[in-house]
Amino acid sequence: MAEILDGKAVSQHFKDQIKAEVEAMIALGKRAPHLVAILVGNDGGSQTYVAAKEKACHEVGFTGTVLRYPDTISQEELLKKVHEINEDSEIDGLIVQLPLPKHIDENAVTQAIKPEKDVDGFHDINMGKLAKGDTTGYTSATPLGITMLLKYYGIKTSGKHAVVIGRSNIVGRPMSILLSDSSETGNCTVTLCHSRTSNLKELCLQADIVVAAIGRPGFVKGDMIKPGAVVIDVGTTRLDNASKKAGWRLAGDVDFASASENASMITPVPGGVGPMTITGLMFNTLKSRKLR
Amino acid sequence: MAEILDGKAVSQHFKDQIKAEVEAMIALGKRAPHLVAILVGNDGGSQTYVAAKEKACHEVGFTGTVLRYPDTISQEELLKKVHEINEDSEIDGLIVQLPLPKHIDENAVTQAIKPEKDVDGFHDINMGKLAKGDTTGYTSATPLGITMLLKYYGIKTSGKHAVVIGRSNIVGRPMSILLSDSSETGNCTVTLCHSRTSNLKELCLQADIVVAAIGRPGFVKGDMIKPGAVVIDVGTTRLDNASKKAGWRLAGDVDFASASENASMITPVPGGVGPMTITGLMFNTLKSRKLR
Repeated sequence: MAEILDGKAVSQHFKDQIKAEVEAMIALGKRAPHLVAILVGNDGGSQTYVAAKEKACHEVGFTGTVLRYPDTISQEELLKKVHEINEDSEIDGLIVQLPLPKHIDENAVTQAIKPEKDVDGFHDINMGKLAKGDTTGYTSATPLGITMLLKYYGIKTSGKHAVVIGRSNIVGRPMSILLSDSSETGNCTVTLCHSRTSNLKELCLQADIVVAAIGRPGFVKGDMIKPGAVVIDVGTTRLDNASKKAGWRLAGDVDFASASENASMITPVPGGVGPMTITGLMFNTLKSRKLR
Repeated sequence: MAEILDGKAVSQHFKDQIKAEVEAMIALGKRAPHLVAILVGNDGGSQTYVAAKEKACHEVGFTGTVLRYPDTISQEELLKKVHEINEDSEIDGLIVQLPLPKHIDENAVTQAIKPEKDVDGFHDINMGKLAKGDTTGYTSATPLGITMLLKYYGIKTSGKHAVVIGRSNIVGRPMSILLSDSSETGNCTVTLCHSRTSNLKELCLQADIVVAAIGRPGFVKGDMIKPGAVVIDVGTTRLDNASKKAGWRLAGDVDFASASENASMITPVPGGVGPMTITGLMFNTLKSRKLR
């Protein structure tokens, strides 16, 4: 049976480190890092994510502000707010929780955030730096959190074959880049698979590391995992489940029961990549504060 | 024996198209596209490349200007020139031929070029757009030229497995992204291999499309090519050769003789990717002119 990669515990480990840095900062009379999240409308998932980020801010000693707007806010008003925050020297990071209402151009809003405060790493400049291996930018939080997890567990990546399933701009694409660049948690040979891949099982079976980020619950089965592989499950689909207080449960992209028979290490859902994502965001916000 | 992918002829085909567009522009009383190349010092390779770009400009009806500076120019002076060109509304594209002398920070110069005039596609914003599949930016000329070649020959990419060897910022990395995005010449499953890849031959043998961009003459042999694969050779190493007028010959990364036994289609060196690169640059300059 596979070892569980305990994202919750590792996340706590890194949050403790961040908290200690913040306390040292404050002891020197410096301002604590300040993260602002903009939340438009009342999507349930978005509210949960923003609340989790706010909670993490408080845990590590950051100032965390949530600005809530009704879903009738105009793009112009939203952009005006983004520009104000860009110019506010007391704010280190700004995230705009997606999705936004349909009348707002998400890309226009994302690109309006100053790259130096774009702790979600969605700005073209940060994506470009990532693609070039330039570490002065911000890496989007989920791929960053995964590299932190790999590092914590001492998982060797150099010369290994990683298969990344899914080519989204916020997970699959940046993850494929990070694993293949010439960094400490890179130097993998990376195969990027997606909906058009014709021989996914055959490719997965070659992988030393599998990262599943497609949003299809239980899609990756044990018979697609090479014995001894490391399996990272990025899926966070909400499935109705009456037995849960919330009425739903989170489902990963990996069929945990069968995959953990073959894998040497595997992330659970929940408690794997999810908490690491939030820690990645905290890490980026601290980085921004230190560069200010 | 493999069909030769004739970059020279295909390049001519696209240059004829560009020329026709420029003539139509001029007939309407509009200004022809204008590309400026900055050449610092007197590196032999750089002079050859810049001369080839200047020649192509004239062939397609562009204004082509080469600004030559001694290798003693300061970074400050060079940046001042870049800023002037950025503000000149009569100039559509600016390229700074690399390498630059050691006392100049190449990245600082590259990033100083306005993204809207960065027809080499090296600016972080253009690299970020590429990574996100946003086609409003500029794709670096070699990967762009390769996609134009694939398109011309009607080579199907969707669902195919491409192996890209080499992870440079100007070829391997952007090529791996282009082949895997959801575009007409994309939708490949892409494996990005590099110096740390442990089982290159085994991976290459799975590839329907091989792109070799490592700068090691003759590195990819026929026994690494699956029968029927398409082979794209990006190598352009200069090897001493006394029998040539110039004293050197260009060598590709692929051992042409053995690879063409197995490949269905293959690019020669010279006359393959090289001319397509220059055509990619012309295409980007025309695009910039049209957007101005």
